[in-house]
Amino acid sequence: MKAKVHVTLKRGVLDPQGKAIAHALHTLGFDQVADARQGKVIELEIRESDAVAAKAAVEAMCTALLANTVIEDYAIELVDARG
Amino acid sequence: MKAKVHVTLKRGVLDPQGKAIAHALHTLGFDQVADARQGKVIELEIRESDAVAAKAAVEAMCTALLANTVIEDYAIELVDARG
Repeated sequence: MKAKVHVTLKRGVLDPQGKAIAHALHTLGFDQVADARQGKVIELEIRESDAVAAKAAVEAMCTALLANTVIEDYAIELVDARG
Repeated sequence: MKAKVHVTLKRGVLDPQGKAIAHALHTLGFDQVADARQGKVIELEIRESDAVAAKAAVEAMCTALLANTVIEDYAIELVDARG
């Protein structure tokens, strides 16, 4: 089973990388960009066919390693490879 | 209008960051992880109400700055803030 974990900075947390992207886009002439924020996606291939167990495992991975829950939010999306 | 740009490494391109994540998860006891790959998401706030124009602008931003199309794929997802 595949799982996608979306990790984004919480609202209100300063995002210097996003600011750099917005600035670079303005420099390139894309003046319509009001704001940019950058997050990350981690695609996991998991040896687990049960969706509930897979989600619980990915949830544990998020709090243990993948996301810093003080400043980041995460969302888990399961993609059944057999689907 | 909001746009999300998903940038992922093309299949076959070595992903050291993903390998590091998979290794760290194994070290933490998550042996069910077969593979991990990391990509990024850029969330843009765009001053443009026309979806077609917004998509064209974001497409131009992707090729100009956001993605390295030699080694990366990108996908654009428009989210109408008024929706």
